[in-house]
Amino acid sequence: MPQSTRSATLDAGPAGPGAGPDPTTAAELAAARRRLATPERLRSFFAPRSVALVGASDSSGWGQFIVASLATSGFTGPLRPVHPTRPTAFDRPTVPSLRDLDEPVDLAYVLAPTRAVEGVLEDAAAAGIRNAIVLASGYGDGGGEQGREAEASLVRRAVELDITLLGPNCLGYVNAAASVAPFGLGIVPPLRRGPLGIVLQSGALTSNVLAFARAHQVGISLLTSMGNEAVITTADVVEHLISDDDTEVIGLFLESVRDAPRFVQLAARALERGKPIVALKVGRTEAGQRTALAHTGALAGDDAVVDAAFRQFGVIRVGSLEQLLITSGLFTSGQVPKGRRVGVVTASGGACDIIADRSTDEGVRIVDFAESTTAKLKAALPPFAAAHNPLDVTGIVLAERGSAQAGLGDVALEAVVDDPGIDFVFNMLALPAAEPPDPSIIERRMAQIATTTQRSPVPIVNFSATCSDLSPFAQSLLDKHGLHTLAGIEFGLTAIGQALRWQETRALDPRPPSTEQVAAPAGLPSGPWSEARSRDLVAASGVPVVPAELVADADAAVAAAARFARPVALKICSAAITHKSDIGGVALGVQGDDDVRAAYERVHAAGRAVADDIEGVLVSPMRAPATELFVGVTVDPSFGPVLAVGLGGVFIEVLEDVSLRLLPVDAAEVRRMLGELRGAAVLRGARGTRPADLDRVAEVVAQVAAAAAGLGPALQTLEINPLRVDGDSVEALDVLVVTNPVTHDPAGAGS
Amino acid sequence: MPQSTRSATLDAGPAGPGAGPDPTTAAELAAARRRLATPERLRSFFAPRSVALVGASDSSGWGQFIVASLATSGFTGPLRPVHPTRPTAFDRPTVPSLRDLDEPVDLAYVLAPTRAVEGVLEDAAAAGIRNAIVLASGYGDGGGEQGREAEASLVRRAVELDITLLGPNCLGYVNAAASVAPFGLGIVPPLRRGPLGIVLQSGALTSNVLAFARAHQVGISLLTSMGNEAVITTADVVEHLISDDDTEVIGLFLESVRDAPRFVQLAARALERGKPIVALKVGRTEAGQRTALAHTGALAGDDAVVDAAFRQFGVIRVGSLEQLLITSGLFTSGQVPKGRRVGVVTASGGACDIIADRSTDEGVRIVDFAESTTAKLKAALPPFAAAHNPLDVTGIVLAERGSAQAGLGDVALEAVVDDPGIDFVFNMLALPAAEPPDPSIIERRMAQIATTTQRSPVPIVNFSATCSDLSPFAQSLLDKHGLHTLAGIEFGLTAIGQALRWQETRALDPRPPSTEQVAAPAGLPSGPWSEARSRDLVAASGVPVVPAELVADADAAVAAAARFARPVALKICSAAITHKSDIGGVALGVQGDDDVRAAYERVHAAGRAVADDIEGVLVSPMRAPATELFVGVTVDPSFGPVLAVGLGGVFIEVLEDVSLRLLPVDAAEVRRMLGELRGAAVLRGARGTRPADLDRVAEVVAQVAAAAAGLGPALQTLEINPLRVDGDSVEALDVLVVTNPVTHDPAGAGS
Repeated sequence: MPQSTRSATLDAGPAGPGAGPDPTTAAELAAARRRLATPERLRSFFAPRSVALVGASDSSGWGQFIVASLATSGFTGPLRPVHPTRPTAFDRPTVPSLRDLDEPVDLAYVLAPTRAVEGVLEDAAAAGIRNAIVLASGYGDGGGEQGREAEASLVRRAVELDITLLGPNCLGYVNAAASVAPFGLGIVPPLRRGPLGIVLQSGALTSNVLAFARAHQVGISLLTSMGNEAVITTADVVEHLISDDDTEVIGLFLESVRDAPRFVQLAARALERGKPIVALKVGRTEAGQRTALAHTGALAGDDAVVDAAFRQFGVIRVGSLEQLLITSGLFTSGQVPKGRRVGVVTASGGACDIIADRSTDEGVRIVDFAESTTAKLKAALPPFAAAHNPLDVTGIVLAERGSAQAGLGDVALEAVVDDPGIDFVFNMLALPAAEPPDPSIIERRMAQIATTTQRSPVPIVNFSATCSDLSPFAQSLLDKHGLHTLAGIEFGLTAIGQALRWQETRALDPRPPSTEQVAAPAGLPSGPWSEARSRDLVAASGVPVVPAELVADADAAVAAAARFARPVALKICSAAITHKSDIGGVALGVQGDDDVRAAYERVHAAGRAVADDIEGVLVSPMRAPATELFVGVTVDPSFGPVLAVGLGGVFIEVLEDVSLRLLPVDAAEVRRMLGELRGAAVLRGARGTRPADLDRVAEVVAQVAAAAAGLGPALQTLEINPLRVDGDSVEALDVLVVTNPVTHDPAGAGS
Repeated sequence: MPQSTRSATLDAGPAGPGAGPDPTTAAELAAARRRLATPERLRSFFAPRSVALVGASDSSGWGQFIVASLATSGFTGPLRPVHPTRPTAFDRPTVPSLRDLDEPVDLAYVLAPTRAVEGVLEDAAAAGIRNAIVLASGYGDGGGEQGREAEASLVRRAVELDITLLGPNCLGYVNAAASVAPFGLGIVPPLRRGPLGIVLQSGALTSNVLAFARAHQVGISLLTSMGNEAVITTADVVEHLISDDDTEVIGLFLESVRDAPRFVQLAARALERGKPIVALKVGRTEAGQRTALAHTGALAGDDAVVDAAFRQFGVIRVGSLEQLLITSGLFTSGQVPKGRRVGVVTASGGACDIIADRSTDEGVRIVDFAESTTAKLKAALPPFAAAHNPLDVTGIVLAERGSAQAGLGDVALEAVVDDPGIDFVFNMLALPAAEPPDPSIIERRMAQIATTTQRSPVPIVNFSATCSDLSPFAQSLLDKHGLHTLAGIEFGLTAIGQALRWQETRALDPRPPSTEQVAAPAGLPSGPWSEARSRDLVAASGVPVVPAELVADADAAVAAAARFARPVALKICSAAITHKSDIGGVALGVQGDDDVRAAYERVHAAGRAVADDIEGVLVSPMRAPATELFVGVTVDPSFGPVLAVGLGGVFIEVLEDVSLRLLPVDAAEVRRMLGELRGAAVLRGARGTRPADLDRVAEVVAQVAAAAAGLGPALQTLEINPLRVDGDSVEALDVLVVTNPVTHDPAGAGS
């Protein structure tokens, strides 16, 4: 079986060592690599029933860790040490080479040094082994040319040999669901199983991630470190996790988004299937980008675009390791709020205060209780407690614990879950660190909360006051009753805000960019276009453009001006002149015929002084001052076409206040972009101007985006600056298009 | 002794029940109350050697908690239960009343119901007891008139009886330094002693605070819950802690800042003495203010002013309970960074990435290592590790633990602390949860870090990757070697940023507002002033004001206009007209004599139509467009005069981008205010305007502030809008002053 698959791969195009990678071979190599990392292949890659450990002796720290990790994960299958000279390792007999195994193992963990790795892979293939983890570093991670070449060679070898390879420079993975953890650092037991799949572009974070998850009742399905992603990439694992039945939530630590278009497709698919992706993406700042680049050799890309793409396709971006796991934990709990109105139940007025502030931050609304709720609460609470939201049942629940009042907190919870005006309950849970002398009281309380949770018409999100580890006793209590609790008000409310935004994004059902490569229209120029040509392009997409006439002499300019309401503007029109004002190529507010004539001559002469290729002079009516927008589409090297919308003036120049989206966008999406602007109030008429017709603005901006998309791979920039907005009048005053040269390849490939 | 003090208090003015509080008595009552809560009184209040428990039986949950808390704190003094009917309580014989004690105790904890409390206080006084904690609620906390009256009566009784009283509606305190904890909820042992004093305006947070502090190696001196602050106030306790030798750092949970001027004085004193105050002040949002009000009955005040006052006087404002304790913990550690350049040492590239982003957020700079450092690192590190900042010594330190490579992390730390270009080291510390099989390795490592810390020329701030509890083993390790570690990168870097800002604020040595009540100048009007009079006021303080002539007829207007560069502006001048434009009282850009004449008549007529009291018409030269600032001084009901500075236009109208300070401010402080504005780049010439002479702007704004301060208690508003800024030309274009009526009281009291 491996033999035949291997031949099929080789048939697709030989790529022996030293063969210069011409484009055809490179594309085929990429495709062949992808075939090694399909969800089907990864399903078996991550669930081996037998493992060989190549090149590890008893004295190797890595080897010790791998053996210990496999034991912690509950792995009971054969573990075969391979060592050229030592007869035993880890209390097991060795074989000198993988070729000497009596039957193939499902996975080889290669501890051999860099220079020996390819030889080991050959041995593996010869032994019928199709999966390997490579620990050795000094490949692409080193940053040098030699390392990059070694990595390229490794990839070609893996493809030739039909070996699915994780790494190099990789610690391995921990599959809790399948009880197997070929992982090269220590993992502290117990390993908690659960529905969170985790992908780390930094394996050294594994122990921190596992420890924090364990301390907060977050169970994992698969955790994998990625190493250099020579064969299996982050996107491959994400695709696997989306189809993996053991995984309900996906958590990522990302240094870079390597195959951005594919990542976006996967994000959209995960969103559609209701599997949240929670991502800690570093490189938000220049220092962060520099550091990530130093560690990975991969550029992080424009963070604003990454951020926009994530928000657009529901990838929840978090800022810390704690938040990564706490937000993921909320999703795994089964108690995910579906709306923004909360009922809060605590035994602490101080906690209520903090929650009130943090709820506002997250757009969570603490609404008034219904009268029916208040009545029930008043009947149960002591007279000095106020029966309002957020609810403080007061310290009496603690002081009178075990007495007749014991159920007070639970009575309150019972009353609040039935409130008709709330979408979820935020319920503070104080759990003992150790088993109390009489555990029956807390057991009863947990059972009561579990019963209420079962019958509650709305989710109950439990939380502790601070981010503190759950003790083993507290975890056993929660597990027994099927309850989850969020680690502290601070991270907990952030998680709730993120879950709410995720659901709102999901409801929008965002369309990912098409994966089909659109051909560029034929006959396009390359480089900057003249304003007249640029205007024609957007006008053809339905974008309203200020009237203009292109004239070739002063008389024609006067005649054109006469057809417009004076004053008029005159602008030199040439593809060779993009900064018209700078060279004196613009005359504004021109009134009389003589002035128009003079302006024409001046503008034209200024143009002639710097360029031969003058199309003429554009004459347009001047417009009164109004709100101005900037609308631009550029092409991000990773993510492709990106639409930017912002208010003009200080908003874009000083505050860099823009909203970004990947294309395609529709008018509804643009409407949301406008709402995200810090200066959004200006569009609503905050400065005494006419409130903008936002639907009309959105429609026009979507037409601009469509015009840009229509240029296909030729698009470099399409910019409308300004787009003038005055009530329902929306009009482009200046348009600039810049295109790339495009080779028209009849086969459609290679672009 | 109590008798004589009591008499002295009574001599100061009788305030028997039912006596209507006329102002003199109220002021004297306040002063008498303050005398009960001096640092001297509080020193003994918080360190009783004997405690009576009044009204607690064995079945009372509160009583059980108090007895248990005293035991947890290590209290070994006499504990005397007092109960009218039961012969014993908590295995001790009771007495029926405090009067029956054979000798006075230092503190009575009063568990009696509200109606019985005053009687118990009388018993206490009769028994020579001068300190009491009152648990009962239903006073001012209830929100009703009856409760407020009961609280006023309680205060008068405490003053009469010379009893220092904490509460009512108060759980008590935990004095770890003095081993005494009369506290009405459970505290989980062990109680960790240390230099952090904590004041909580919500007692129910105590257990959360103590648990989190304990889990993160943060020891406390005194923690007190405040209750209703009827006698002892938060400010009193802060004053006590500032002078308390056991306390080096002060942590606060604040629902409201009750006596804001005194709080500011204390903040300035704490800053000057180098005792950081870290505060979680709730009520940032409308929902938070509503919630805090519901719990305390005290209004939270304008949060923007609270925030400005805190920043101005070095009170570190945090957003979460975790941050309150982690930031406090950094200050207690003795390893506080003094500058912003960091050297980072980790064994995780992923941690480096996160640190790089978060450092940027906090203004911490990851600088390049010196060549000498790089050389030392290269010699020690494996070839695949890069010797740059942030430093990842790679997972090899873990894999080779215990081998020859064991000291790698420490060698790296040794090299980095000596780097001449850094101000502190951020050192990642992975601590085992439980004692490892061979503890000598980690012991050696800790000893090495301790040695390096001792000899290091810069502070070493250790941190863990996530906010996770320190296990008892980890704590014992750290304690043994005198080391501290911050809980996670997220909170840890926030703490570092806060510590750095605190030190920078301290270096500025901010002057608090004067506590002396300045008298208002005689002869001021009350209400809005005319523009002419307003201009004169600020001009007298040195503020440059656009030239203007106040004219009373059209001829004079023409003559005035002739003396200025045309065009000119004409504005109606009347104290009765504050919105001149709205009533047609302004003419702008007037050129010729006839136009001036017509404008005068129009503006004057518009004024006459709405007001009788017209001073005339102001004629001024028009100024060319330039950068415009808003400068205003208003009076906050809690904090007093507040200066607001912002850029005009969208910055103030749409973005509400203002910087606030309490008065007094000098020009240097105003310079910092300008730097805080989001639109600061506009002043630096971002929009093609002349860069502003910021020193000149600051000087003028400080003069405006001085003019406002000179009005003393008469000040209501002083507003310059706009202050025109064009390079080094700074000029007020419009000025408005509004004053309060002031009763001139020769004694200076009652204002």
